[in-house]
Amino acid sequence: MTTERETATGLRLLAPQAGTSRRYQSPGYRAKLLLLGPPLRTAQLVHERISKRVALAVFSSDPISSTAYATEEMLLVLVAGGAGAVGLALPLAAAVAVLLLVLVLSYRQVIAAYPQGGGAYMVTRDNLGNLLASVCASALLVDYVLTVAVSVSAGTAALASAIHPLRFHRVEISAGFVILLAWGNLRGVRESGRIFAVPTYVYILSLGGVVCYGVFRVLTGDLGPIAYQPAEVAELAGAGTALGAVSLFLLLHAFAAGTTALTGVEAIADGVPAFRKPEARNAQRTLTAMALVMAFLFLGITYLAIRLGARPFDKGHPTLVAQVTAHVLGGGTGRALFLFVQVATLCILVLAANTAFNGFPVLASFAAKDGFMPRQLRKRGHRLVYSNGVIALAGGALFLVVAFRAEVHLLIPLYAIGVVTSFTLAQAGMTRHHLRVRQQGWRKGLAVNVFGASVTLVVLVIITLTKFTHGAWMVVVAVPVLVMLLRRTQRAYSSEVAELKVEATQRLAPPKPRHEVVVLIEDLDQAALAALQYARQLNPLHLVALHIAVDPDRARELGALWARVRIPVPLDVVDAPGRNLLATARTAIEELVRDDTEVTVVIPKRSFTGFWRRLLHDDSSAGLFRALGSLDGVNVTIVPFRLGRRARLRLVRAEG
Amino acid sequence: MTTERETATGLRLLAPQAGTSRRYQSPGYRAKLLLLGPPLRTAQLVHERISKRVALAVFSSDPISSTAYATEEMLLVLVAGGAGAVGLALPLAAAVAVLLLVLVLSYRQVIAAYPQGGGAYMVTRDNLGNLLASVCASALLVDYVLTVAVSVSAGTAALASAIHPLRFHRVEISAGFVILLAWGNLRGVRESGRIFAVPTYVYILSLGGVVCYGVFRVLTGDLGPIAYQPAEVAELAGAGTALGAVSLFLLLHAFAAGTTALTGVEAIADGVPAFRKPEARNAQRTLTAMALVMAFLFLGITYLAIRLGARPFDKGHPTLVAQVTAHVLGGGTGRALFLFVQVATLCILVLAANTAFNGFPVLASFAAKDGFMPRQLRKRGHRLVYSNGVIALAGGALFLVVAFRAEVHLLIPLYAIGVVTSFTLAQAGMTRHHLRVRQQGWRKGLAVNVFGASVTLVVLVIITLTKFTHGAWMVVVAVPVLVMLLRRTQRAYSSEVAELKVEATQRLAPPKPRHEVVVLIEDLDQAALAALQYARQLNPLHLVALHIAVDPDRARELGALWARVRIPVPLDVVDAPGRNLLATARTAIEELVRDDTEVTVVIPKRSFTGFWRRLLHDDSSAGLFRALGSLDGVNVTIVPFRLGRRARLRLVRAEG
Repeated sequence: MTTERETATGLRLLAPQAGTSRRYQSPGYRAKLLLLGPPLRTAQLVHERISKRVALAVFSSDPISSTAYATEEMLLVLVAGGAGAVGLALPLAAAVAVLLLVLVLSYRQVIAAYPQGGGAYMVTRDNLGNLLASVCASALLVDYVLTVAVSVSAGTAALASAIHPLRFHRVEISAGFVILLAWGNLRGVRESGRIFAVPTYVYILSLGGVVCYGVFRVLTGDLGPIAYQPAEVAELAGAGTALGAVSLFLLLHAFAAGTTALTGVEAIADGVPAFRKPEARNAQRTLTAMALVMAFLFLGITYLAIRLGARPFDKGHPTLVAQVTAHVLGGGTGRALFLFVQVATLCILVLAANTAFNGFPVLASFAAKDGFMPRQLRKRGHRLVYSNGVIALAGGALFLVVAFRAEVHLLIPLYAIGVVTSFTLAQAGMTRHHLRVRQQGWRKGLAVNVFGASVTLVVLVIITLTKFTHGAWMVVVAVPVLVMLLRRTQRAYSSEVAELKVEATQRLAPPKPRHEVVVLIEDLDQAALAALQYARQLNPLHLVALHIAVDPDRARELGALWARVRIPVPLDVVDAPGRNLLATARTAIEELVRDDTEVTVVIPKRSFTGFWRRLLHDDSSAGLFRALGSLDGVNVTIVPFRLGRRARLRLVRAEG
Repeated sequence: MTTERETATGLRLLAPQAGTSRRYQSPGYRAKLLLLGPPLRTAQLVHERISKRVALAVFSSDPISSTAYATEEMLLVLVAGGAGAVGLALPLAAAVAVLLLVLVLSYRQVIAAYPQGGGAYMVTRDNLGNLLASVCASALLVDYVLTVAVSVSAGTAALASAIHPLRFHRVEISAGFVILLAWGNLRGVRESGRIFAVPTYVYILSLGGVVCYGVFRVLTGDLGPIAYQPAEVAELAGAGTALGAVSLFLLLHAFAAGTTALTGVEAIADGVPAFRKPEARNAQRTLTAMALVMAFLFLGITYLAIRLGARPFDKGHPTLVAQVTAHVLGGGTGRALFLFVQVATLCILVLAANTAFNGFPVLASFAAKDGFMPRQLRKRGHRLVYSNGVIALAGGALFLVVAFRAEVHLLIPLYAIGVVTSFTLAQAGMTRHHLRVRQQGWRKGLAVNVFGASVTLVVLVIITLTKFTHGAWMVVVAVPVLVMLLRRTQRAYSSEVAELKVEATQRLAPPKPRHEVVVLIEDLDQAALAALQYARQLNPLHLVALHIAVDPDRARELGALWARVRIPVPLDVVDAPGRNLLATARTAIEELVRDDTEVTVVIPKRSFTGFWRRLLHDDSSAGLFRALGSLDGVNVTIVPFRLGRRARLRLVRAEG
């Protein structure tokens, strides 16, 4: 039963009774129900509006969490330059903070110009055209995958720094987190900001506390440098190069390593519509607050690391932040607090990975809407999330985690290139936007964005050059390949749209003048009779039954029975000396195709209930359907005849 | 183009032009062409008539080749009884020869009664009914699989006895032979008797020569017993049991081991139609000749083995026959002759395995014709052989070769039960036949077959009991399981035939009074227009377009475009809040099904040329086809629209 109502356009809307639509469940669907829970209704799609405080937590976990590894990555580079170089970490961290300031100013412009959200991809697409939009999408997609891989690896490292035996299972643990995140996101973790706010604030407060307490103890002379055991010293990074040289390249390389802290800064600009009104204003303020928190933590950690003489270990275990934290908090109660800080670090890093699970599928769906990516990425799944995007991201991240053994310092050289590319493109796009739109105050905006674009371009060049041989080349190869794929996809879709598009001035053509119907007959059984009865319903110009004689004896028997039952449809028998049923049927049918003729091939299909019976039959109707369905201009109809369930009364006994 | 001719029954026969039927080639078909060569035409199926001399070689390789291992298997049992027991090998071999005589007499009756061939299965089916026919088929099928496994293993053992390093690769070599035989048979090794005759005669003559020369040398006192090295003595079978006891069970067990020589005796009765006229008479004479040759070789080898004190090795390497042969032929030129005999032994054993590749698929096709086995076994493949039977046999034999590590003495306990079961059933069936038909001289025939049935039944009991714990239990389990499967298959098919059968008095029913056509619309594009145009061709009572609203926004857009293009077909929109396209479509369509209504669902299918484009689309038409095709009483039509190849001109511009 359906209820029906007329609409203004003559459109009839039917709403099926609740529940009925769930009767048909394929095995795959049943597995889905088990794993993901009942399907969500489209109407359940809600957009929560969140306060600045919550927004800070939701959108900033990615950039803020990068303070857990950025200092260590800088020092890892600097140790090659000896003790003198290590001392330069603080000015370099300050340079990164300045870069952050430039980005904040630039992105405030983006937020003002694009209050509907969308970030770098939208800005690039609207202002710089298709090619650069595909570059931006590719760069961002690569970086989202890296965000997941780096964040779960760093989170696992933080946990292992407190619980040492876990360090031998970093790959498994990291992969487990990726799978857990994918599952949670496929189930549709609702964007319930309040819960997500907890780990971010816990991290900010606990690590902020460590920084304050540490700086206080250092300044009061209460805390000496970390004393490494001789065994530990051998495992420190750069242990062999006591007297390295401080070169410009080294400094630039260290700076490039520090810029990994900047990934995720664009998240707030992407999510403007989620803010309470006035959205743009609130988003701008949150962006500024985020930058301040991040700069404080990053500079604080770096300062403490240098003052305490903390050095990164070669294998990344324990982490630099863990060393500093443990040293600052000391023994006794300090040990328990240390464990707490490490768990908080793990939590915010997993949360940071989760933001990529929010960002990637949405960006992929935008790109798919623009034809850059397969249409399947636009489809909201069972639980209203873009499931295919979630799966693609999880697959990519799992690959990276396994390939790079969940080691953060191996992944870092690949990281940040994508995001800085998108920064550059966004600022360049904004420059173009100002020149085009010339809104009030555009001159100031133009200045900010030109400056931002220049700075980020320089940073991009620095990162690419200094990290190139350490792995960045992979990204330099991957992004253009991805761009090529995206553009090829777009070409395929757009030619397709052109072919399929219906203009409002077009009208439905009348039926073709001729209709030929061919019924494919294997045996003259009840299924064949049902198909013949159906075919006569179509009232065609010509109706013919066709038998492909794979076995000549059987063809003769069929002909005899055909005459005996006096079927009023002529039977054509086509010889198939090679016993290739499909090819022969194709050849025979193909001859009927003409421009003014509609050709229908009717195939009787015997359906069997139960596994055993289905096993005993190779379904020739499926093969015929595939072989004939790929012929141009041939319509294929399957007339089912179900056995074993109930007898169908299609037959009328001879009256005479 | 086709040529056409009328036949008496009003049947039109069309012969497609040569070559055209091969245009459509799926990837699987192309692989077939590469592996198996071009397809053979059904007309190329020829039945060669062969002379007695060739027939002896073609049909007897299986029983005659068993002389290569039967003596060894008997001695392997007897050594447990000590030296005294071993001396009893000759009388036991004589008992087996007597049993062979009984079988020959019995099978001469079968040949006379069933000159059309078919052997034990046909006799049982015609005289003892379905249940015992399925027992006979199961027993024979199991034994065919064992024939392949035992023969290739024994052949490999014979080869390794001459070329010792090969003994470490017996599983691989045996498996290789199985695969080679399967491939050759799938390609369709023509039954060219002359070539097949060579290995059999070479074996008969060379091993016959060894026997004659050996007996001559023994009788002239020219040849002493084999002198084993101390190291070898430790590896002889039963080396530990110097003073065993000779029990009746031991003797019966040894006799049972000897009966493996009898497998394949029925081959001549199966192949009567292949003989020159008078077929029955020639077949009977060939049967007798085969029995004489076999008895001579078997008794001769056994006699020599005992006189020369040959003992089987525990690991079956080198074989007993190889020991005897090498000892008789001696060194020098004898070594070369020895190698020759071993290769001849390998050849006849591989040939014996090949007879199973002829027998199994034919028997399976008979059983399939009677509904006992899946219909696919009736289908002649690419090269006119029953390919599915060949594959099933090869699979089974490979499994046995690997599971039993290609060791003959592990396989032997499983062997012969099946064939002796079929002997018993055939003789029992013949008894019934004589009582029923009472042809001239039936009393004599009855006596022979009653005697034969009794003897083989006793032998069957002996074999089953004595070998039960050594592995025969597997066959005792496998055969009933197989019987159950066969009978279940037959039940499924026969209920199906009853449901599908068309009586000569039936007539084709007139079309149903009502025809509802539903066009499933995803987008209003050219593909949808083509489907709508086609649907109007069908001239139904009601024509409606149906859209499943997975995405409400898209449904609204569709409705607006529908009104703008003024499609003269009403559009129903069904809400799918769970976004389950298939289930919702099923529910909506199911409501239309009524007994007096023919329902046609028209699905537009966008077909894409090229891998890239196909990748970019998940074909929803395929899923809809599956979901709707399984609904009773719903006919599903696919209207194809091909993109990327050429624009189809289905549309006429608005005339107004």
